[in-house]
Amino acid sequence: MYPNSFKTLIEELKKLPGIGPKSAQRLAFHILSVPRQEIAKLTGSLLSVKDNINHCSKCFNLAEKESCDICSDQNRDGAVICVVEEPKDLIAVERSRGYKGYYHVLGGRISPLEGLGPDNLRIKELLGRLESGVLEVILALNPTTESEATAIYLTRLIKPLGIKITRIACGLPIGGDLDYTDEVTLTKALEGRREI
Amino acid sequence: MYPNSFKTLIEELKKLPGIGPKSAQRLAFHILSVPRQEIAKLTGSLLSVKDNINHCSKCFNLAEKESCDICSDQNRDGAVICVVEEPKDLIAVERSRGYKGYYHVLGGRISPLEGLGPDNLRIKELLGRLESGVLEVILALNPTTESEATAIYLTRLIKPLGIKITRIACGLPIGGDLDYTDEVTLTKALEGRREI
Repeated sequence: MYPNSFKTLIEELKKLPGIGPKSAQRLAFHILSVPRQEIAKLTGSLLSVKDNINHCSKCFNLAEKESCDICSDQNRDGAVICVVEEPKDLIAVERSRGYKGYYHVLGGRISPLEGLGPDNLRIKELLGRLESGVLEVILALNPTTESEATAIYLTRLIKPLGIKITRIACGLPIGGDLDYTDEVTLTKALEGRREI
Repeated sequence: MYPNSFKTLIEELKKLPGIGPKSAQRLAFHILSVPRQEIAKLTGSLLSVKDNINHCSKCFNLAEKESCDICSDQNRDGAVICVVEEPKDLIAVERSRGYKGYYHVLGGRISPLEGLGPDNLRIKELLGRLESGVLEVILALNPTTESEATAIYLTRLIKPLGIKITRIACGLPIGGDLDYTDEVTLTKALEGRREI
């Protein structure tokens, strides 16, 4: 009963995660009420993200160029690589300000239920990076069963290479999410890391 | 710490109602993960709404042409006008399938706190429409104090014109929202309307 373009917008908004029919309608009315240039800014930034954001060729963090800002930074400690599941976990560790090395984004964890095996993660790429002067690999994975399994898998691969491998300390609540942990807890967890 | 275009997108998403920093980040990652053509559909529909949706020149419902679909429909009962606050309330009444007349969208209610007086609503335009063969005005306003005041104001203006003026019955829970009422309750409320 709404005009077609309005109905179409509600349908498109409903496809977004966490947006139900009522939220979509509310958002659509909001969009109707704000100036066109505001919406043009929003649509511009939506397309800009699709056009400009890639994965860093080295660590697979989000990047606008070939290398991400962190991999391009020569002042970081090249002897340490911190392994995270997703770019948002990398941001969480950065926010803690307790870490000055480089990163490696796996792109998930080993999860047979989601059909994710070791081959779907950037494990081969991580092993490739360990050849050049890396002394320690820190696993900053979420404290869940699946990530636990991923940590054990990575330990078996990396330990024989004679590289120190550590995990951030349990200071995170079990079953929680790294992305939601406050900065202080995360710094503590980094300090309290122990060899596996 | 995110790349610029990603940060910009999160900032733009945070401006939307009901979207906080965490939801904005989650939406931005979702947008990163879906094909570009999906996002182009979303941005297309956002701009299409800004470019194509106007208010109907007669009833102020949402419309893509000069007149909305309801005002363009010759098969409706021209003797009755149903007055609602917002287009979404009109849609709620239409969903009840209990009404076959025309509508008039006020654009809100008299609300001194929001700085909305009678002059900010389309009351003059409503009175202009009452000259041509209208026998009854149904007020389908929300059951709140402010809308109650608006109903009294409209009654004082319309009753002297010799036109029957009714309100939808209280079947709606007081303090509730017309937009959230189920179809059956709304049909009952329309049937049980009484003269003021």
